[in-house]
Amino acid sequence: MAKPFTKSVFKSLFRRKGYDNNNKCYKKVVRLCSNHVDCMSVVYKEYGDPNKVLGIEKHQLSKRLKANEVMAKMLLAPVNPSDINMIEGTYFLKPPLPAVVGNEGVAEILDVGENVKSLKVGDWVIPNQAGFGTWRTHIVTECNMFKKISNDIPQLSAATITVNPCTAYRMLKDFGNLKPGDVVIQNSANSAVGQSVIQIAKAWNLRTVNVVRNRDNLEQLAEQLKQLGATHVVTEEFLRKPEMKDLIKSLGAAPKLALNGVGGKSATELLRHIAPKGTMVTYGGMSRQPVIVPTGVFIFKEVTALGFWNSQWNIENDTSPERDIMYEELCNMIRECKLIPPPCEMFPFDNYAEAVESAMKGFEGKKKVISMQEF
Amino acid sequence: MAKPFTKSVFKSLFRRKGYDNNNKCYKKVVRLCSNHVDCMSVVYKEYGDPNKVLGIEKHQLSKRLKANEVMAKMLLAPVNPSDINMIEGTYFLKPPLPAVVGNEGVAEILDVGENVKSLKVGDWVIPNQAGFGTWRTHIVTECNMFKKISNDIPQLSAATITVNPCTAYRMLKDFGNLKPGDVVIQNSANSAVGQSVIQIAKAWNLRTVNVVRNRDNLEQLAEQLKQLGATHVVTEEFLRKPEMKDLIKSLGAAPKLALNGVGGKSATELLRHIAPKGTMVTYGGMSRQPVIVPTGVFIFKEVTALGFWNSQWNIENDTSPERDIMYEELCNMIRECKLIPPPCEMFPFDNYAEAVESAMKGFEGKKKVISMQEF
Repeated sequence: MAKPFTKSVFKSLFRRKGYDNNNKCYKKVVRLCSNHVDCMSVVYKEYGDPNKVLGIEKHQLSKRLKANEVMAKMLLAPVNPSDINMIEGTYFLKPPLPAVVGNEGVAEILDVGENVKSLKVGDWVIPNQAGFGTWRTHIVTECNMFKKISNDIPQLSAATITVNPCTAYRMLKDFGNLKPGDVVIQNSANSAVGQSVIQIAKAWNLRTVNVVRNRDNLEQLAEQLKQLGATHVVTEEFLRKPEMKDLIKSLGAAPKLALNGVGGKSATELLRHIAPKGTMVTYGGMSRQPVIVPTGVFIFKEVTALGFWNSQWNIENDTSPERDIMYEELCNMIRECKLIPPPCEMFPFDNYAEAVESAMKGFEGKKKVISMQEF
Repeated sequence: MAKPFTKSVFKSLFRRKGYDNNNKCYKKVVRLCSNHVDCMSVVYKEYGDPNKVLGIEKHQLSKRLKANEVMAKMLLAPVNPSDINMIEGTYFLKPPLPAVVGNEGVAEILDVGENVKSLKVGDWVIPNQAGFGTWRTHIVTECNMFKKISNDIPQLSAATITVNPCTAYRMLKDFGNLKPGDVVIQNSANSAVGQSVIQIAKAWNLRTVNVVRNRDNLEQLAEQLKQLGATHVVTEEFLRKPEMKDLIKSLGAAPKLALNGVGGKSATELLRHIAPKGTMVTYGGMSRQPVIVPTGVFIFKEVTALGFWNSQWNIENDTSPERDIMYEELCNMIRECKLIPPPCEMFPFDNYAEAVESAMKGFEGKKKVISMQEF
């Protein structure tokens, strides 16, 4: 990093040029010339109701980077269900407290230490692992805490690529030994993962049977999902009807893979329609009910039931080529408009509390995304 | 086959030698000299209560074998739960009716057709596949319907090797990637499969935690299972106690494999003690309850749940070398007294109805075995 200029030198320089203290540009220059960056983070010091336990902490980050460090400015970070559960203390992983909220997001590199070769100023980066704490304006950290992501895709896509599209990609890639034309059945088809599944499956010429809960605007939702690439959209109730068997019959092949984000009855119903020797991957449990598998489904239908956890996959595949291939392929899909992010609602960073409250009212609506652009 | 002698020639021959019609030896010779063998089978023409729908059918088998045929005399056949369920029509497979009862047993080859090289007179054989219909005195069939089994092991071991020891062997061999010292947990530990699991695990230096239902003679049962090789014997109730965690801790490693023959709560409890990334294999559902898996066990503990069905394995591995290796290894264990058959109670063939009634009163007692020796 270039040797930092002193604040006073620059202040005098800008005053001479007619900028005053209230000028926005002046403030920015002062910030640029400072030895520190003012940074804000959303933190929690105890587990509990996210509407109560969160607060903003301010501190200064030194611009003098160590050799392997980078400084980054967060751009966007979504509110994910796992973020909420982590704050509540109900998630499988409990981060040591105090903790900065947020597992996903995109940042821009502002500066790099002298030994950093993998990243340069202006690069976009995403957290390498979960538990990063993305709800902050700036961060200085070891360069390997980040993973570079192409900056020719929409910022929103980059900010939401780590969790849902990667989960969908891996489940379709690693389970059920799927080939073009094969059928996948999934519940929670309107969730963020579900929508990624639909789009990636479509890109890979897989057919999808998508199960959603019944609702007033069902037809409209079905149409939306079909526009994303869904082959069929059915309700939970339809799964139990004889017509469902006709639908599967009309596909010429039963689903080799079932993706379960709900649990309870919904998961059991998926199993009724899965092919012999099929696989059911559980990645979520929205119903808060366990997965119930009739004994005969295991013994006579020879179904395998297992789980997928994106965070764990990332730990085990930290530097694996499969991971780079995945991001490359997902970015290509994004560039070709084959994979769009779910509908979002933006909240400026200092309105994070509103984003949280809104997110907790239901994840089926628009995804809440926090923007740090202006900070 | 030698050209058959006519009955009348032999009758006259034996009369001359002073044998009369009531003499047992005479009868046997007459039978030997006949062109036919009198055969009896236990059959059902409709599905239903095994105490009601079974009957004996008599017919004659020609001794003139086709080139690839063999004639065999059944020696012993056990009453297995799946036999009962098949008769009831509640089993996954429904044999076409009328059907001969029995999936397991041992027979002796009486004669072979001219092209049969793999079997010779005096060999012991077991059914190559399930659905054979072993509850009969004699059978003429294609030689590949049988699989040769060593005749230097106890007849009872040969008669009961196909289902339970093979199921136990495959589950311990094919799942959980077990190595000597590893721990296996199983419920239904006192069942026939359970006892085979204990003995094979012991032979392979695997440690077993064996779950049984509480009962009056618990200590005695635990002692018996420990004599078979069980490392620990605990009750279903004990699984829920804090002491169970201490027990697992004392083993220095959590079970990599859980074997479930019960389902319901019992299976869920096994999952509490299984190691991360462990496998649960379901081979039975004695409780008639489904398998209930908490979502977090799939996602965060990364447990895989699947099933094993011996009959299906046999179909898929009809001529695989693994199958021969398995029988060889099991026979060696039997010869070395490392694998003994479960305690049995014998019933002569014409008392089959008593065997069935007795078996249906509870499978936890002695296994009922039907003997065709005298027929």
